[in-house]
Amino acid sequence: MLAFSDRLEAAVVRCRNPVLVGLDPRADMLPSGMLAACDTAQPEKIATAYEQFCREIIDVVAHRVPAVKPQAAFFEELGPAGMVALASTIRYAQEQGLMVILDGKRNDIGSTALAYARGFLGRESPWGADALTVSPYLGDDSLQPFVEVAAKQMAGLFVLVKTSNPGGRMIQDLVADGKPIYRHVAELVERMAVMTEGDNQYGAVGAVVGATYPQQLAELRAVMPHTWFLVPGFGSQGGTAADVAAAFDPQGRGAIVNNSRGIIFAHSLQPYKDRFGAARWQEAVEAATNDMIEQLRTETPAGKLV
Amino acid sequence: MLAFSDRLEAAVVRCRNPVLVGLDPRADMLPSGMLAACDTAQPEKIATAYEQFCREIIDVVAHRVPAVKPQAAFFEELGPAGMVALASTIRYAQEQGLMVILDGKRNDIGSTALAYARGFLGRESPWGADALTVSPYLGDDSLQPFVEVAAKQMAGLFVLVKTSNPGGRMIQDLVADGKPIYRHVAELVERMAVMTEGDNQYGAVGAVVGATYPQQLAELRAVMPHTWFLVPGFGSQGGTAADVAAAFDPQGRGAIVNNSRGIIFAHSLQPYKDRFGAARWQEAVEAATNDMIEQLRTETPAGKLV
Repeated sequence: MLAFSDRLEAAVVRCRNPVLVGLDPRADMLPSGMLAACDTAQPEKIATAYEQFCREIIDVVAHRVPAVKPQAAFFEELGPAGMVALASTIRYAQEQGLMVILDGKRNDIGSTALAYARGFLGRESPWGADALTVSPYLGDDSLQPFVEVAAKQMAGLFVLVKTSNPGGRMIQDLVADGKPIYRHVAELVERMAVMTEGDNQYGAVGAVVGATYPQQLAELRAVMPHTWFLVPGFGSQGGTAADVAAAFDPQGRGAIVNNSRGIIFAHSLQPYKDRFGAARWQEAVEAATNDMIEQLRTETPAGKLV
Repeated sequence: MLAFSDRLEAAVVRCRNPVLVGLDPRADMLPSGMLAACDTAQPEKIATAYEQFCREIIDVVAHRVPAVKPQAAFFEELGPAGMVALASTIRYAQEQGLMVILDGKRNDIGSTALAYARGFLGRESPWGADALTVSPYLGDDSLQPFVEVAAKQMAGLFVLVKTSNPGGRMIQDLVADGKPIYRHVAELVERMAVMTEGDNQYGAVGAVVGATYPQQLAELRAVMPHTWFLVPGFGSQGGTAADVAAAFDPQGRGAIVNNSRGIIFAHSLQPYKDRFGAARWQEAVEAATNDMIEQLRTETPAGKLV
């Protein structure tokens, strides 16, 4: 198996787009047919509905986009039954040819960080994720076990650098030693990316950089030439294709752009709501995915992917 | 049910000590009799051994200490089977009269943070934890959903402020606007503690402050009068009873001190190894717990608890 960065690049090039479909199931937003199964509010039943919902999304987007990003929180919200559904969703996505980036924002220190890394990273691990999001507050020694396991298991990491939410500024934009905290984190992540460089110029350690801050996206792209960007905030959080353009290198590589609600719940959003409605929600997912692909091809360097 | 801070205070006063026993099971450190079941390296078998191991520890420490802290990472490392064992361990500890602080260091934004909060916080939630550790890198709006759910569910939070690992300095000790990042986080946490104050002076939002930095512990105690401290780093990480003394208020309240390996694997550490060995590992747990209680009573204001 190839290194994570090479596999991700190959998947992006094969699909000719950098779309990352977020799997964020929520009981109150499932298409109406699936909601019936949730009426009892039993976690086990909701978990079964989530699994089915995610499978159908995967069936639509596989071979169309390079990767999916299950959000651990929505599965964890259901207790152990949700975790069974999460594990099954990860495996199913990979069986359909998708890479899986698990959004868990985990972190801890020493042997505890190692336990998370061993549990989540790589297809041979219990959860089997191709990559995991991690949080940097605990510092460089907390990230090191993740980096080592990722490199060994041909897996990847995405470290939170500059997040898409307004409150992210509170810590991330504080200025120390002449630069914001997110730049301090960025420099650490870039060093780790260089240490784990694959055949292409990118490493196994990437960065989460929000679409809602286009200026910082451009600034960080310039100082992190070996770092994959995972860009959240497109769509429902207000980020546009133009906003994410700066995340890519001149060849249209180096970034994947997430959309969760705008794709998986497209049936409840215009223009898809009127065109398809809840009964044809899978077609809404397909149309929203195709529209996002087209927007990124037209308005960002991702159009140059060959 | 009382507010989290009142329940925690009542438990500390009832036991007359602030010891928090960390449940960090590891396959390679289990007492020898339990290791046999793990030989197959099947996650399900290891999970069963973890559950049994934690139950026996709980049987020893219940009514002796106020609370336990399961470390999510070691259960998650086993995949979904580990999560089933984690949920069962939480419930069992509570049935035996212990409060349960789940160490998951979760965080995310908006409705995703809300999903974590709903999943973990409060005895009516799927995981049923009395409190959860959370990470602050995403800022104040990421913590808000946790705070709201905690207040509503009579549960608590412990936000990472100053962690016990050496690398924690990297971000936490950077100085912005004339004070270190951990002080910025501390001020936010103290405000949230005040907003969620119970009948005693403490709130539902606490802080994780490492035993390995006694000076910062004293500094933070002074500026966070309404904030419970969860103090890791005692024992195996080098923190002593004298080091954690500054975490308490003058009445010996306001802090709980964690020890994981030093208690649960006491059978492999001196002086307990020679006295008890692996065959009498439960007695080693008991002796190590009693010794820690005695140290804290003798060398910290916790001796004043009545």
